[in-house]
Amino acid sequence: MVLFGAFPMYPLPPSESILFVIYLVAITAEAMSGALAAGRRNMDIFGVAVIAFVTALGGGTIRDLILGRFPIGWTQNPEYVLVVIAAGLLTTLIAPFVHHLKRLFLVLDAMGLVAFSLIGCSVAAGMDYPTVVVIMSGMITGICGGILRDVLCNQVPVVFQRELYASVSLAVCILFLGLDAWGVDTDLNTAISFAGGLTLRLLAIWRHWKLPTFSYQDRWD
Amino acid sequence: MVLFGAFPMYPLPPSESILFVIYLVAITAEAMSGALAAGRRNMDIFGVAVIAFVTALGGGTIRDLILGRFPIGWTQNPEYVLVVIAAGLLTTLIAPFVHHLKRLFLVLDAMGLVAFSLIGCSVAAGMDYPTVVVIMSGMITGICGGILRDVLCNQVPVVFQRELYASVSLAVCILFLGLDAWGVDTDLNTAISFAGGLTLRLLAIWRHWKLPTFSYQDRWD
Amino acid sequence: MVLFGAFPMYPLPPSESILFVIYLVAITAEAMSGALAAGRRNMDIFGVAVIAFVTALGGGTIRDLILGRFPIGWTQNPEYVLVVIAAGLLTTLIAPFVHHLKRLFLVLDAMGLVAFSLIGCSVAAGMDYPTVVVIMSGMITGICGGILRDVLCNQVPVVFQRELYASVSLAVCILFLGLDAWGVDTDLNTAISFAGGLTLRLLAIWRHWKLPTFSYQDRWD
Repeated sequence: MVLFGAFPMYPLPPSESILFVIYLVAITAEAMSGALAAGRRNMDIFGVAVIAFVTALGGGTIRDLILGRFPIGWTQNPEYVLVVIAAGLLTTLIAPFVHHLKRLFLVLDAMGLVAFSLIGCSVAAGMDYPTVVVIMSGMITGICGGILRDVLCNQVPVVFQRELYASVSLAVCILFLGLDAWGVDTDLNTAISFAGGLTLRLLAIWRHWKLPTFSYQDRWD
Repeated sequence: MVLFGAFPMYPLPPSESILFVIYLVAITAEAMSGALAAGRRNMDIFGVAVIAFVTALGGGTIRDLILGRFPIGWTQNPEYVLVVIAAGLLTTLIAPFVHHLKRLFLVLDAMGLVAFSLIGCSVAAGMDYPTVVVIMSGMITGICGGILRDVLCNQVPVVFQRELYASVSLAVCILFLGLDAWGVDTDLNTAISFAGGLTLRLLAIWRHWKLPTFSYQDRWD
Repeated sequence: MVLFGAFPMYPLPPSESILFVIYLVAITAEAMSGALAAGRRNMDIFGVAVIAFVTALGGGTIRDLILGRFPIGWTQNPEYVLVVIAAGLLTTLIAPFVHHLKRLFLVLDAMGLVAFSLIGCSVAAGMDYPTVVVIMSGMITGICGGILRDVLCNQVPVVFQRELYASVSLAVCILFLGLDAWGVDTDLNTAISFAGGLTLRLLAIWRHWKLPTFSYQDRWD
C-alpha cells in the first residue's frame, strides 16, 4: 500500500507517478494560497516566502515529527523548498490577475487536499501505525499546512469554519483504507479515492455544504 | 519513580492504577474545555473535534517531541484519541447544561492539571534528563494543551493571565521531586503531591490568588 | 566548519569561545525582548518566564526538531534555561528604565540574530544536510524564537513586516557558506560573517531599509 516514501524518482508504478505530479501541483497551489494570505497581512516578500513554505510543506513536516520520521521529507528534497518559495514570490507578481483564476485555484487546492491526504495515509501505513493514526496522518498532512498559515497570519483557521474541507480529508482516508482492506489494487484504489475525494470537495464548494456549527457564548470559566 | 510510561495495562502498583483513572478523567475534562473554546469561535463540529484532541493530548505530544520520545504516546494508544473526540462531540450536545456543572468542571480540570504534571515529571525522569528538564516536562504536559487550544482559537493563552495555574504545575513537580529525593515511597509521594496540588489549585480559584502581573505599554522597539 | 555542537566547554578554538559568549548575550537579549512583549499583554510573571524562554530558546528547539537532533540542545544545558528565565524576570524589574537602553538593546538583539544564524548553519552542516537545509537551519534558529513569541502574544510576527531582519539572517548564512566553500579559515570566516551581518542589520535599522511589501486585499476565496 506504500504509495511513496521519500519520493524516490522513476521508475514508479502508475499511481505513484501520477500522484507525484499531483503532489507538485498541490504544493504549488498551497504555496500560492499562503502567499495570498500573507498579502492580506501586508507582509514583506520574505514573509510571503515563509508563509508559502509553511502552507505547502508544513503539513508534511508536522506529520513527520509526530510519526518520528527523520529526516523530515523536504530536508532530503530541497528542490521542493525552492519550488514553493518560487511559487509564493511569483504569486506577488500575478496577484492582480489571480481573481480571474478563482475556479482554477479552487480545483488545484482541492486536488492538493486529496493528494496530501492519500500521501499522509500511505506514509503512516508504511510505518505500521494503527489505523486511527494512519487516518490522522492523512488528515494532518492534508490540513495542517493551512492551519499553520492561519495561525501565523493571526486568524482562526478557516478549515474549522468553512465548507467541508477537513471532512473531505477524513472521507478520502477512510475510503482508501477501506478499499485497501477489501483487496483493491493500489493503483485503482488511488484513482478511485482521488476522484471520489475531489468530487466531494468540489460539490461541497458548489453547493455550500457545511458541517453543523457549534456556538457557545457563555463565558463562565 | 517511573509512574507509567506508555500506559502498560494491569497489573499496576496502586499509584499507577489510580493515576491512570485520573488521567482518563483529565483528558476527558480537557477535551470538554477545548470543545467549549471551539464553540466560542463558532467552529464546525470538525473544528470542535480537533480542538478537543489538541487540548487533551497536545501537551503530552509536545513533551514527547521535546524529549525525543518516539513513538509519541497517543499513537500507540489510539483509544485515547477516540475518547477525547467523543468527549468533545458530546460536549456540543450537553453545552446548554454545562454551566450548571461549572464547579464539577473546575475540579476535573484541576485534577487533570495535577495528574498531567506528575505524569510529565515521571516520563522525563525515566529518561534520565536533568532535574530542570524533568520539572519542565511536567509543566509542558500540564499546560501546553491549553496553550495550543488558545493559539488555535486566536487568543492570548489564559494560563499566562489567570489564577495560579502553571505555578500549580511547577509546585507539584517540585514537591514530587523533593519527596522522591527524600526517599518517600512513590505511591505515597504521588498521593501527597496530587492532594497538595489539587488543594492549591482549588484554593487559588476560590480565593482568586494570582501571580503579580507585568504591564509594559511603551512601544519603542 | 562545525562551530559548536552541544556547546562543549573549554578549550574551544577562538571563534567558538567568542561565539559562545555572544550566544549567552544573545539569549539574554532575546529573553528580555520576550519579557517586554509579555508585558504588553499584561501577563503574569509566569507568562513572562515562558515567553522569555520561548523567545530565547524556541528557535534552536524548532531547529533541533526539524533536523531530528535529539536530545534537544537546552535539555543538556539546563543552565541556559535558568539564565533566560532569570533575564526575563529581571526585565520586569528594570522595565521602567529599559527605554533608556533602546540602542543597546537593538545592538544586542542584532548580535543575537547573527550569532543564532551562524550557529544554526553550523549545526546543520555538521549533520551533512544539503546546502538549502543548512541555510534554512540558520534562519530557523535566527528568527523562529521571535515568531513563537509573537504567536503566543497573539500578533502577526513582526519579522514579516519590519526592517530587514530575516533577510539579514539569510545573508549571513549565504556569506558564511560562500566563504567556507572558498576555503576561508573558520575563525576568520566567523568574524567576517558576524561583522558583516551586524553591520547590515544596524544599517537597516538606522536607514529604515525594508523589503518590498505585498498587499492583497481581495477576499474571494
